Amino acid sequence: MKVYLGIDIGGTNVKIAVVSPRGMVRARGVLDTNPSDGPRRTFRRIHDVAGSLLGARDDVRGVGVGCAGLIDCDRGWLSSSPYRPVWENTSLRGIARRAFGVYTAVDNDANCAAYGEFRCGSSRGVRDLVFITLGTGVGGGVVCEGRLLRGAGNYAGELGHMGIKENGPRCHCGSRGCLEAYVGTSGLLRTARRWMRVKKSPMLAKWLAEGQRLTPRLIFEAARRKDPAARAAVSEAGEHLGVGIASLVNIFNPEAVVIGGGIAASLDLLQPRIEETIRQRAFPEAVRMVRILGSKLGNDATAVGAAMLAKDALCEGP
Amino acid sequence: MKVYLGIDIGGTNVKIAVVSPRGMVRARGVLDTNPSDGPRRTFRRIHDVAGSLLGARDDVRGVGVGCAGLIDCDRGWLSSSPYRPVWENTSLRGIARRAFGVYTAVDNDANCAAYGEFRCGSSRGVRDLVFITLGTGVGGGVVCEGRLLRGAGNYAGELGHMGIKENGPRCHCGSRGCLEAYVGTSGLLRTARRWMRVKKSPMLAKWLAEGQRLTPRLIFEAARRKDPAARAAVSEAGEHLGVGIASLVNIFNPEAVVIGGGIAASLDLLQPRIEETIRQRAFPEAVRMVRILGSKLGNDATAVGAAMLAKDALCEGP
Repeated sequence: MKVYLGIDIGGTNVKIAVVSPRGMVRARGVLDTNPSDGPRRTFRRIHDVAGSLLGARDDVRGVGVGCAGLIDCDRGWLSSSPYRPVWENTSLRGIARRAFGVYTAVDNDANCAAYGEFRCGSSRGVRDLVFITLGTGVGGGVVCEGRLLRGAGNYAGELGHMGIKENGPRCHCGSRGCLEAYVGTSGLLRTARRWMRVKKSPMLAKWLAEGQRLTPRLIFEAARRKDPAARAAVSEAGEHLGVGIASLVNIFNPEAVVIGGGIAASLDLLQPRIEETIRQRAFPEAVRMVRILGSKLGNDATAVGAAMLAKDALCEGP
Repeated sequence: MKVYLGIDIGGTNVKIAVVSPRGMVRARGVLDTNPSDGPRRTFRRIHDVAGSLLGARDDVRGVGVGCAGLIDCDRGWLSSSPYRPVWENTSLRGIARRAFGVYTAVDNDANCAAYGEFRCGSSRGVRDLVFITLGTGVGGGVVCEGRLLRGAGNYAGELGHMGIKENGPRCHCGSRGCLEAYVGTSGLLRTARRWMRVKKSPMLAKWLAEGQRLTPRLIFEAARRKDPAARAAVSEAGEHLGVGIASLVNIFNPEAVVIGGGIAASLDLLQPRIEETIRQRAFPEAVRMVRILGSKLGNDATAVGAAMLAKDALCEGP
C-alpha cells in the first residue's frame, strides 16, 4: 500500500508518522534526540524507527520533513535553526534522500502544519487559509489559492512577528510589539502576572503558593475555573490575537484562520474575544467570509503536512 | 498592431491608456466624469475617447478596467464603490464588453497598479512584490510568485488597514491605529500640525499664514527646504510606514516593496527612515532580500496593470 512518511523535527524530539495518500496517520512514533547530534546520525535513527512503524506491504513513495528554522525549500537546505545549531547549513533533503532513497520534500515546520491543515484539517476544501501556531513562539503559514505562501527566500509567513503595537514590549526577534511578544508563552505569563496584581486570583495564587510553576496551561485551567485574574489575562490575549488576526483578514481575505499549537485546546476560551475584536476591526465583507477554527490535526499537523507536500510534489493521485 | 486598453476609473475622472503588448503607453486620455452618471453612459463616453486615441491600424485585443471598490474579479462585478455609489452592484465586465466587444478583465485599482508595477515597473522580473499606494487612503496589492493575491472574495491586499498600534487613532474604516490612520492624508496633516506646535516651522507657518491650505505636498515641500516641523512630520511618517512595511516583509518576504500614489515623488525624503525602521524590526534574512522602490509607472500604473491583466488572461504572446 502506498504511504508517505512525515517527519517533524522539533527541538528535543522527532515525530515520525506513516501517512496514507488521503492524509490519515497509519502509525506514529516519537524519537527523543540530542539536539547536538548531527543530522546524519539523527536521520539514521529516524530511518530505524520508521522501519519499525511500516507494515510489510507498505510502499514508501515519498518523505516530507518539517523543521523549525529558515529553510530554502527548493533546495531542501536548512540555513538557520534555533534549536539545532549544529544542523545549520546542511542539505536536509540530501540527508533524508540518502536515508530513505525516495523523493523528499523539506519545509519550515509551521508551513508544513499550515499545509496539513489545508489538505487534511478542519478547513478541508478551503483554498485560502491562515494558520497560526501558539507556543513558546508564535509561528504561521499561509495558503493562498491552494499554494503555500513562500516569498522570495521561503521566509514568508512569520505571522508572529507582525507588529501590533509600535512601542510595545521587546520581542525575542529584536523588534517591539510583535504579536509573539503578547501571546507567545513569555508574553502570556507577563500578562497573567500583571493581572494577578490587580484582580483576585483564588486559583492561580493558590497553585503558585503550592509550588506550581506559572505556565500557559495553568492560566487557561484557572480561567476555565473562573479565576478572575486568569480570565482577564486570557481575555487580553484574545484581544491581542484579534488585533493581529484582523490585520491578517484585511491582508489575506482568508476563508479560515486555523489556530494550532499548545494553546489550541483552550481556543474556546479565547475565541469569543478574538471574534469580537475582528468584527470591530476588519472589513465586514472579509469578516463575513472567515471562520476561526482550532487545529484538527493537533500534534500531527507538521508531519501530515510534510507528507502531503511530498505527495503533491510527486503529483500522485489517491 | 495589437494593443490593449487600460481604463482607470477614479473618483472624478477616468484615465484611458492605449497599451502595447509590452506595456508601453502609446496614447493616453483623461475624461472628466460626473460620479453620479451611470456606468453605461460613462462607458459610452470612454469608448468615444478610446476611439480618438487609437490609430487606424490598432487592433484592440482586450480591455482592462481598474476601479476603486470591492470587486469580484472572476465575475467582473463591482459590489461596493466609495466614490461612485450609483455604480454599485453592476457587472463592469458586462458593460465594458458591450462597449468594446472584446475580452475584459476587471479588478480593484490598487491590484491593477500592483500588477502593472510587477509586469512593467521598476521591479520588473521580481516575482514577489508588495505595492503600497499613498494618497487620501492607503491601498495595496500583493504579487506572490507572479500572481495577484486575491483572497477568498478578492478583498485581499488592504494593506492600509493593517493595525500598527492597537489603541492608535480612529481610522475611516472603523478600526484604530491602521497604517492609513497615520500615513493617509488626514493622518499626515494631523502629524504635521502636532509638530508645528512643538518645533519651529519657518516655511509651513509662513505658507499657511499666506492662506495656503495644508496638504501632504506642502509638508514634503517644506521638509525638502529643511523646515524643522515638516522634517519631523515626514520622519515620523517614515517610521510609521517602516513599522507597517517591516510587518509586511516578515509576512511576505518580498523582493520589492513599491511605493506609489501622490507621495511617491517624495519617497527620497521618507526612504532613509523607512529603511532604518525595517532594519530594526524585520528579520535580517528577509530585510537583505528586499528593496524599497518608488513606482515607475506613476499615474499610469492602474491603467497599464489593467491592460496587462487582460493580456495575460488571454495568454497572448508579445
